[in-house]
Amino acid sequence: MSATAGEVRVAFMPSGKRGSFAAGTSVLDAARALAVDLDSICGGRGICGRCQIVVSEGSHTKLGITSRAGHLIPLTAPEELYRSRRGLAPDRRLGCHARMVGDLVIDVPPESQLHRQVIRKDAEEREIELDPVVRLHHVQVEQPALASPTSDLARLLDALGREWGLTGLACDLHVLRDLQGALREGDWMVTVAVHDGTTITAVWPGFRDLALGIAFDVGSTTVAGHLCDLVTGEVLASAGAMNPQIRFGEDLMSRVAYVMMHRGSEAQLTRVVRECLSALTRELAETAGFEPADVLEITIVGNPIMHHLVLGLDPTELGGAPFALATNASLRLRAAELDLPVHAGARVYVLPCIAGHVGADTAGVILSEAPQASDAVSLLVDVGTNAEIVLGNRDRLLAASSPTGPAFEGAQISCGQRAAPGAIERVRIDPETLEPRFRVIETRAWSNEPGFEGTQVSGVCGSGIIEVVAEMVAAGICSREGVIDGSLAARSARIEPEGRTFSYVLAEGPPRLAITQNDVRQVQLAKAALAAGCRLLMDHLGVDHVDRIRLAGAFGAHIDPAHAMALGMIPRADLASVGSVGNAAGTGARIALLSRAARAEVEEVVRRVEKIETAIEPRFQEHFVAAIGIPSSAGGDSATPRRRRRERRMA
Amino acid sequence: MSATAGEVRVAFMPSGKRGSFAAGTSVLDAARALAVDLDSICGGRGICGRCQIVVSEGSHTKLGITSRAGHLIPLTAPEELYRSRRGLAPDRRLGCHARMVGDLVIDVPPESQLHRQVIRKDAEEREIELDPVVRLHHVQVEQPALASPTSDLARLLDALGREWGLTGLACDLHVLRDLQGALREGDWMVTVAVHDGTTITAVWPGFRDLALGIAFDVGSTTVAGHLCDLVTGEVLASAGAMNPQIRFGEDLMSRVAYVMMHRGSEAQLTRVVRECLSALTRELAETAGFEPADVLEITIVGNPIMHHLVLGLDPTELGGAPFALATNASLRLRAAELDLPVHAGARVYVLPCIAGHVGADTAGVILSEAPQASDAVSLLVDVGTNAEIVLGNRDRLLAASSPTGPAFEGAQISCGQRAAPGAIERVRIDPETLEPRFRVIETRAWSNEPGFEGTQVSGVCGSGIIEVVAEMVAAGICSREGVIDGSLAARSARIEPEGRTFSYVLAEGPPRLAITQNDVRQVQLAKAALAAGCRLLMDHLGVDHVDRIRLAGAFGAHIDPAHAMALGMIPRADLASVGSVGNAAGTGARIALLSRAARAEVEEVVRRVEKIETAIEPRFQEHFVAAIGIPSSAGGDSATPRRRRRERRMA
Repeated sequence: MSATAGEVRVAFMPSGKRGSFAAGTSVLDAARALAVDLDSICGGRGICGRCQIVVSEGSHTKLGITSRAGHLIPLTAPEELYRSRRGLAPDRRLGCHARMVGDLVIDVPPESQLHRQVIRKDAEEREIELDPVVRLHHVQVEQPALASPTSDLARLLDALGREWGLTGLACDLHVLRDLQGALREGDWMVTVAVHDGTTITAVWPGFRDLALGIAFDVGSTTVAGHLCDLVTGEVLASAGAMNPQIRFGEDLMSRVAYVMMHRGSEAQLTRVVRECLSALTRELAETAGFEPADVLEITIVGNPIMHHLVLGLDPTELGGAPFALATNASLRLRAAELDLPVHAGARVYVLPCIAGHVGADTAGVILSEAPQASDAVSLLVDVGTNAEIVLGNRDRLLAASSPTGPAFEGAQISCGQRAAPGAIERVRIDPETLEPRFRVIETRAWSNEPGFEGTQVSGVCGSGIIEVVAEMVAAGICSREGVIDGSLAARSARIEPEGRTFSYVLAEGPPRLAITQNDVRQVQLAKAALAAGCRLLMDHLGVDHVDRIRLAGAFGAHIDPAHAMALGMIPRADLASVGSVGNAAGTGARIALLSRAARAEVEEVVRRVEKIETAIEPRFQEHFVAAIGIPSSAGGDSATPRRRRRERRMA
Repeated sequence: MSATAGEVRVAFMPSGKRGSFAAGTSVLDAARALAVDLDSICGGRGICGRCQIVVSEGSHTKLGITSRAGHLIPLTAPEELYRSRRGLAPDRRLGCHARMVGDLVIDVPPESQLHRQVIRKDAEEREIELDPVVRLHHVQVEQPALASPTSDLARLLDALGREWGLTGLACDLHVLRDLQGALREGDWMVTVAVHDGTTITAVWPGFRDLALGIAFDVGSTTVAGHLCDLVTGEVLASAGAMNPQIRFGEDLMSRVAYVMMHRGSEAQLTRVVRECLSALTRELAETAGFEPADVLEITIVGNPIMHHLVLGLDPTELGGAPFALATNASLRLRAAELDLPVHAGARVYVLPCIAGHVGADTAGVILSEAPQASDAVSLLVDVGTNAEIVLGNRDRLLAASSPTGPAFEGAQISCGQRAAPGAIERVRIDPETLEPRFRVIETRAWSNEPGFEGTQVSGVCGSGIIEVVAEMVAAGICSREGVIDGSLAARSARIEPEGRTFSYVLAEGPPRLAITQNDVRQVQLAKAALAAGCRLLMDHLGVDHVDRIRLAGAFGAHIDPAHAMALGMIPRADLASVGSVGNAAGTGARIALLSRAARAEVEEVVRRVEKIETAIEPRFQEHFVAAIGIPSSAGGDSATPRRRRRERRMA
């Protein structure tokens, strides 16, 4: 690279893009000419501070550039003003006002990049780049004049074309209502929000760099929301609430049954869940110190029934075969269509559903975990009333829903309960004494440790049930066929007869918590369904081993992978390759909120997911029967609880 | 054209399109293959009857075809059924079921053409082809199955692609709500409405061929609506109502003044005019025997202030220079955004405005009168509080608004009133006796004829004021400078002193109606403004003669062109070239309702109209001053009232 007289050479890092420009060109103009990712909202007026850059001083021999801070003109008045008002680090300059008078190497810090990485998945290769669907643009609009009778909108569109290269924009009606006042109040300077590069959805007088979005995960039990800054990608607040539909039925199927029995009641269920979303919106905005009207974009994930009820669609068809969805496509709506108390121009993006049992929540899990981005074969499991299972890699992806029933949620278990304070979530049984110790949600101490006294114990949640049954088998209380060994009543008072079978008393109470023979059977049925679903997908994919297992959702967050594997819930794999990913569906909603490209990606991936319907696969029944028993704990390639305990004892 | 064995030759009239097809091909399939304009809603199921055709029997020597009715298979069972249920003329066949077994010439009657001509402008070359923005499509949708888990919408889209070649369709949320029920109630046969070829906006179970639209002309004084069948183009009902905004101000400027003085009151004005549109919608539907929910499409025209108030936009800016419109572009909205009680999927098209004084009503006049389609130079005049003037031909079009003030509407005239029953609309003055005779709106007899006795006379409307002043000049009561000649008081008691000037008593009353000197001055000011506006546009276009003059609106409908020309309101032209076109703005709205192409046309034409602002044109003032006087009635190239009367007397 060489420069002619009156020209300066510049290279931008980290992109490495470079070129020659007339001396006096601003850094922002040079960056735009080279398509360098340098952000701006105010259009180069020194207001927004988003185009901050740093001069990389020294001899860059490879580039043939000797770069000096003095190769920019001295700090300008607008930069001084910005520094005094909003702060500017000593080595920082505003790219819009810093003009180049000598050769330069310019560092663009991550926060000055429009497409900066905003969600890094821990210990994963995947990065999510900010690619916001809503962008703010500050513009100077010409004043009206008798001699050129156009309109406020026409002059705004002219300005957006001239300053930002935006053309062919549509405009919401409510923006027209706000535009007249905003132009005059802002002395013909306004900031507009442009949605998806196509539509003006908001206008404010003067300069503004605030645009918020909310990612909602609508679960049957809980509804979670994350308030994000659409400009920086930052999470500003998170909040959750119980799904108020619970009063119409504890689980999904009982809510569908309610709708079937009360014609027209879906409108009621729709109303209460939308009220919940509205309340969360207000709570999130207040927590972060903003107004609900600052929210311009919303994304929603949920299982098919929640998806339908939020949208006001009758879920009855999802209550029985053939489980016909009203739509499986993604939806782009106005927030007003869902009665959400946000900006009048706010839009909603609802992620696509995959099949009648595999919803937009699973699409969110896929977007978050990205099995399609890897050669490794991933198994994603999200357990609720049903277990949604996704298996595959970049070549093929399969999905199914396995009818585990609600046992993993603590239902249909004599002492079961939802995961909530007071619920036993961890259990260990001493194989010698058959005595248990356990831990309760939100209490750090185990039941045999100091500090546990006085803790209220109310029941056993899903992860506790998995552990207690796995531990009962490991301790020999339960056979591999799932029969509680009554002969042990002679060794321990915890083995008690109950009718013609036996129970294991986990806690003396009150309340007294015992694991009955029927409870063990319920766990066996549920885990066999999950195992059979995983196995069926592995058959379809033609693999007998998976490289990576991810357990999603609240259940996945609490479960101990070792116990799940010991029980045979999930395929045997290296324990190090098994991880819990928390609310991956919610993370997917957040990714879709911040990245336009991610929306296109999830739609494309969901389209090519192969849907496997367990109900019509004869092999599913075979696998189910084969998985009823509990595998030999010594036979796996992983450390089972018993083996680990023995190793510890020997150490 | 020759056919090979097993093939038949067919020609369609009036298009003349022809081809060869395998024997057994249906007429509809052949028509589609040849892109012949043959309508269908039911997709060839023998239900809708829109594909009716007639065999043109005989030897068509030019085509080399001998066509016989017997060259179609005999009447089929579905045709028999259609005949018994809905009637089918003896020579008619359903194109979808009539299969060809020999050579044929097929007549497609106008009512079977999708793009049939629906609005023929009397005595004009222009024809409006039906090109509906909403089309109905009847389809058979696959039933859901466990083995192929898609969704109701996905299967509907498949069917629309397969049967109608429609792809990439979007779908309203409310359609998803209706879709589940419609599919099951209709046994997987449904009819959908597709808007603009892009969006499914409605769905009904089974077959349906009803789709209605309303064209609204929102005037300051009256609001008119026409209910049209979007499938046939037919007008089913028309209705009008007083604009209820009148209680906030009689004319436009007093309503703007009300809004200026009562902050936020534009919402009130918006509410009442929308309520008026809603009431008219219900009235129109009831009159025609349908439901408001059958209405799928609405178009709206109106002056800029009505345009803004219907849209909920503050009209204050239009109350003073520089008269900045919020938008001048056409708008595509959902009817719900304007609170209209029609189908949830109904859309609204608002025609574009031209300038701050020249509104969507003038765009409607242009669409109706099509000056851009002709070499002849047209002058279109729509008189209200201001006069909107359009001048030009296919090469150039100019528009301006002239500040005539409300005199032509009867305001600011001592005995003036709105055009309503009781108002004098026609006046003749005998030049010998100076005695007047007049006619009153909705009374056929003149005041000196039998049958007039007992008629209530309340005032003089705009057209009556024009006539009385023109007649006063013709009779010599008034000089060409506009001075009432007090010396005539000696000849007639109708000339009365009033202060230092004189009046002419038109009716003894009660109420007593006299034309004062000031009334004459008001008419002079108004007509001078109109004349100066016309003259200014003629200067800009570089013509001193126009080929065609069209007077639009209620005023144009009542005014006598000869009097208007005598008064110098409009340029001198051959009287035969001057016509009244009634509610041309409303006709424009109706054209835009029925023709998608017309929308593109009016947008394109309005974009290239040259806007002339009279307020900043010095020549406007010159023309205005020059036009204050009343031209010599003998000097024109047209028959003036006096000349005609003399001719009559001599005959």
